[in-house]
Amino acid sequence: MYVGDMGEAYIFLPEGFEEIEAVTVIDVLRRGRVCLASCSLTDNKTVCGSRGTIVVADCTFKEFKKLYDLYDVEAKHFEPDKPLLIMPGGHGVENYHWCIGFENLILRQNIDSGYIAAICAAPTVLDDWGILSEKNVTCYPTLTLKSTTISKNSVEVDGNIITAQGPASSMEFALKILETLKGTKIRDNVAKQLLF
Amino acid sequence: MYVGDMGEAYIFLPEGFEEIEAVTVIDVLRRGRVCLASCSLTDNKTVCGSRGTIVVADCTFKEFKKLYDLYDVEAKHFEPDKPLLIMPGGHGVENYHWCIGFENLILRQNIDSGYIAAICAAPTVLDDWGILSEKNVTCYPTLTLKSTTISKNSVEVDGNIITAQGPASSMEFALKILETLKGTKIRDNVAKQLLF
Repeated sequence: MYVGDMGEAYIFLPEGFEEIEAVTVIDVLRRGRVCLASCSLTDNKTVCGSRGTIVVADCTFKEFKKLYDLYDVEAKHFEPDKPLLIMPGGHGVENYHWCIGFENLILRQNIDSGYIAAICAAPTVLDDWGILSEKNVTCYPTLTLKSTTISKNSVEVDGNIITAQGPASSMEFALKILETLKGTKIRDNVAKQLLF
Repeated sequence: MYVGDMGEAYIFLPEGFEEIEAVTVIDVLRRGRVCLASCSLTDNKTVCGSRGTIVVADCTFKEFKKLYDLYDVEAKHFEPDKPLLIMPGGHGVENYHWCIGFENLILRQNIDSGYIAAICAAPTVLDDWGILSEKNVTCYPTLTLKSTTISKNSVEVDGNIITAQGPASSMEFALKILETLKGTKIRDNVAKQLLF
């Protein structure tokens, strides 16, 4: 993707991201013509997933951050919608904590009611940052959340927060994000293509 | 993966491979401790999928081919099992035809009854090469096969040929390959991890 302008959605890839969860979302959203970029949370664009698949992301976090900050200023005059931000799970979820500026980004996004989507172990990071309080959310069922109970559904939407359980819920999660951005008609067309 | 010895399974990545289909298989098989390598069918290890995700493969086709040829000689004395070969679908399936030596590899693999697994549009390539005749196979439902009828099931196994329908069947396809290599107990454990 061309990353000179703010996209409609960004998926963040920390070292150790869960590959099925990340790649399914990228694939499904692009089938639905969402302007999406993958964003590495390491110092360069190359990131290794939980099961050894190496992906070259579209941009680094620094490149993304520059656009996001600029957009915050411009958004007052032009477009009101923040991009939707997506956090896959995987062994590497702790790396969300180690990326300087990432927590602050998520908190700003949440204050402005921008969409945040997290799957598998990633909702525990949002929980650590205090933004799931009293929210209806789901996550990988063997984990625990401090601020809320975990729903037994595979995907949940509560206001600006979209959450899902794990690898096998990736396609449903991706389609829910697509529906949020583009509506049910495009969601249904893409689901049909995928044989979902 | 260390690619100095022959692995248990290889997944081939032509330019334009379908990302969900490829990455789901890699992830699931590695969760089941299958010694698997991804193999680029371009001149270098970096390959771009159907929806723009760039993956760095573990080896190139030339590197794989050298091992496979050597193994053919050694196999007479030591291990009888050929590695299982996996072909994802995607816009790039025609590139299986353009990779010098790939058709010959698949024909040799089939003559020796080595496993070949193909999903989505990839079974049409096997059909073009004449190895699906009278086999019970499936593929993406809007496609046609010259030498056999297409089953309506999402996954089929007939002898050494494993086939599947499309993106939404990727996890079932991957688990069937895992079961073939490691048995039902490991398959069931990994399925549980995935919440499948």
